[in-house]
Amino acid sequence: MMLWLVLLLPILSVTSRSISIDHRSQSNTIADRIIELVTQGEFRGVTYNRLAALVDTIGPRLCGNESLTNAVNWVQNAMINEGLDNVHVEEVQIPHWVRGEEHARLIQPRNAKLSMLGLGNSVGTGPNGIQAPVLVVRSFDELNARCGEARNKIVVFNPQCDWQAQPIGCYGPVVGYRVGGASHAAKCGALASLSRSAASRSIDSPHTGVMEYDLTYPKIPAASLSVEHADMLDRFQQRNQSMEIFLYMEAQTLSDVVGYNLVAEVKGSTLPNETVLVSGHLDSWDVGQGALDDGGGAAISWTVLSLIHALNIRAKRTIRCVLWSCEEFGGIGGDQYFTAHQNEVPNMSIVMESDLGVFHPQGLQFQGRPEAQQIVTTISKLLTSINATQVVSGGGGEDISKWMQHGVPGASLLNDNWDYFAYHHSRGDTINVLNSTDVDLAAAVWTVYAFSIADLDSILPR
Amino acid sequence: MMLWLVLLLPILSVTSRSISIDHRSQSNTIADRIIELVTQGEFRGVTYNRLAALVDTIGPRLCGNESLTNAVNWVQNAMINEGLDNVHVEEVQIPHWVRGEEHARLIQPRNAKLSMLGLGNSVGTGPNGIQAPVLVVRSFDELNARCGEARNKIVVFNPQCDWQAQPIGCYGPVVGYRVGGASHAAKCGALASLSRSAASRSIDSPHTGVMEYDLTYPKIPAASLSVEHADMLDRFQQRNQSMEIFLYMEAQTLSDVVGYNLVAEVKGSTLPNETVLVSGHLDSWDVGQGALDDGGGAAISWTVLSLIHALNIRAKRTIRCVLWSCEEFGGIGGDQYFTAHQNEVPNMSIVMESDLGVFHPQGLQFQGRPEAQQIVTTISKLLTSINATQVVSGGGGEDISKWMQHGVPGASLLNDNWDYFAYHHSRGDTINVLNSTDVDLAAAVWTVYAFSIADLDSILPR
Repeated sequence: MMLWLVLLLPILSVTSRSISIDHRSQSNTIADRIIELVTQGEFRGVTYNRLAALVDTIGPRLCGNESLTNAVNWVQNAMINEGLDNVHVEEVQIPHWVRGEEHARLIQPRNAKLSMLGLGNSVGTGPNGIQAPVLVVRSFDELNARCGEARNKIVVFNPQCDWQAQPIGCYGPVVGYRVGGASHAAKCGALASLSRSAASRSIDSPHTGVMEYDLTYPKIPAASLSVEHADMLDRFQQRNQSMEIFLYMEAQTLSDVVGYNLVAEVKGSTLPNETVLVSGHLDSWDVGQGALDDGGGAAISWTVLSLIHALNIRAKRTIRCVLWSCEEFGGIGGDQYFTAHQNEVPNMSIVMESDLGVFHPQGLQFQGRPEAQQIVTTISKLLTSINATQVVSGGGGEDISKWMQHGVPGASLLNDNWDYFAYHHSRGDTINVLNSTDVDLAAAVWTVYAFSIADLDSILPR
Repeated sequence: MMLWLVLLLPILSVTSRSISIDHRSQSNTIADRIIELVTQGEFRGVTYNRLAALVDTIGPRLCGNESLTNAVNWVQNAMINEGLDNVHVEEVQIPHWVRGEEHARLIQPRNAKLSMLGLGNSVGTGPNGIQAPVLVVRSFDELNARCGEARNKIVVFNPQCDWQAQPIGCYGPVVGYRVGGASHAAKCGALASLSRSAASRSIDSPHTGVMEYDLTYPKIPAASLSVEHADMLDRFQQRNQSMEIFLYMEAQTLSDVVGYNLVAEVKGSTLPNETVLVSGHLDSWDVGQGALDDGGGAAISWTVLSLIHALNIRAKRTIRCVLWSCEEFGGIGGDQYFTAHQNEVPNMSIVMESDLGVFHPQGLQFQGRPEAQQIVTTISKLLTSINATQVVSGGGGEDISKWMQHGVPGASLLNDNWDYFAYHHSRGDTINVLNSTDVDLAAAVWTVYAFSIADLDSILPR
């Protein structure tokens, strides 16, 4: 460890060529030991297998659901047995939305089951369901132009985006219809809102996610449709075939419940009150297994501590792993953690969250001052052997955003996540999506950064 | 048309270089007119749009179901309105299996819905369902070795194949577990059989298909599981986590009903009793839309006649389009058609069936004597402008196999169908899978071959 400290820091002031020389000669000892342990040593496959056991045995972990508490207990016990420092939970208050039974049927022009998933926060339809004709629009502008036609109808939002060209970039422009569609439709007198799944590709798989009501307008039920069924309804309208849909949803929001952020650490050797925070969220949607979103991010963050603990090393600073509660309803656990811990802002060197996949890693997304990014770029050379040396600007995460707003540098895992939105928030979010070798590499990247930043002479410049 | 006849035949006796010259100079007039009409003229998009209207409005078309008859009527009316020759249906006797309600739940180690689809021909579970512990095997050999463990259990077949390396080739080795798994399991005293979906990739999408009973053993219910759920059960077993599943299926086989092969023609000018047969099957599974399997093959076969009719041309021989009934239960419509028409074997120049996708076409799969394949290869030059000139050995189709067994040359569409088994027999088989431009090109290939072969001086050598 001392070798690491002594040799890493001089690197930061030399040219990139001499960095390269130093790197190859001595300074990479600990980074190489981390990489070797997780890619070829006894931790090979451990992260994937732990995650598979968790998500197979506990299943998905919806905010407010007992399964989320079970998962916290499961991981907490494993962390204690492993001998990590300061393993504990911190209570947070979280919402408790329940899906209940739900289904949708096309009644006209033919009778067929529609592939749907109710959206988080949505109200239900009442026991008799809602049967109504349909108006399909492709944008809020089109809805505004046809607002009069929406009254007493079910509005279907079918926003278009070239997902093949922008498998990640389309999510932003499209997700607004999932989140805000219901209130836009309610403003025009609609009875319910259905939105095309925010999915890069589909095998008739609906994708859920959170929605929000504008309290100016009546709360109407909101669900997503599979891409295929949204397009079919769009074609019916283009052909002037009249449509009617029956929608039934028991969804409701119960009283808030107590949830838990799970915390574990490897304490710093000389500056234990200064911290590097690595994280992912343990809650997920209630379909699939929540292996991708965000079991994988949680799992590699846990593995950061496991590897450092197994190597019996300590950085100067404390490395803290937080597995968040209830990210999916808007960073609930993360925001409350910040409120409780904001006195640590001056001592928090960096906040890291992995929540966009643990596919083959390419490096790090980093948001902070150029001087800090320069240091991160220097550290990236330690990942040359696994070809994960990219550092790009951007990144962050829902649960760490408050810290970043207060000036703490933030980072997320840069990985080959082009296929992320094929599975995200759908029944397809299972451990099958992930690859054990890539998960190991992702854990290596995450650990090398966490350790190296925790072991710098100073916290990152801000 | 006469230009076509005069100029095409000399090509067949000259070298490939002079073929090329002839081809570029004069003989391709009709082929070029066909290609232009369907890729740039008034038939551009028509095949896709007709198919979309059919599968949106009628939906899937399970053998024995009223929707299949509705589809036959829909297409028949359109063909009559279009003015095709000899539009008629021919009755066949078809099985009538019904799915009914069905579901499966994992009871232990946790309670979760399993993604399943009952298999065609399967019996049901009875009104109380079947609840039993689980044995997972990866092969018939493993089942035989563990036969004693299967008694009173639900057997899960989880055959492994590298679908990424062999996205088409894996189907054959794997589908045997779907077809024959139940009787193998019943032989060992199992109560039900579940098989991993024969799917190249999955978003938790189960794939159905036909199964068959060996009447030596009790008939036990048979269903498919999604790839993800089959793998999860496999992992539970590897971890020695005990499993229990509840399976409920109302599936049953009712009395045979009358079905219809739909036939239309463009009569030959000089040899109307000699025939080129183009075909696809109109029935499908009862999930999704049956757009890929085999709406697309049926649609391009119909378009062959539409294009020739629209161009107001006739080949020497009759071109006959047959849209088969009930291929999915084992070529039922095709076999009965052969029985009724086998006296036409001597006059049938070629039988063509497209039933493996209408993705971007590359050419033709052909099965026949080398002299015939040489002629087909010569015709392929007419498709140079759309780069679909490959001719490879093989091909055929379930519904035309009897003709081929009696020596008639057979062909199928060679196309870029690597993704076929992601959608096949699943809810993902919708018009979204297809691309209008590629469907037009596929129709062009199909039509140029049908016309050219029908317009040769003789039927293809056999």
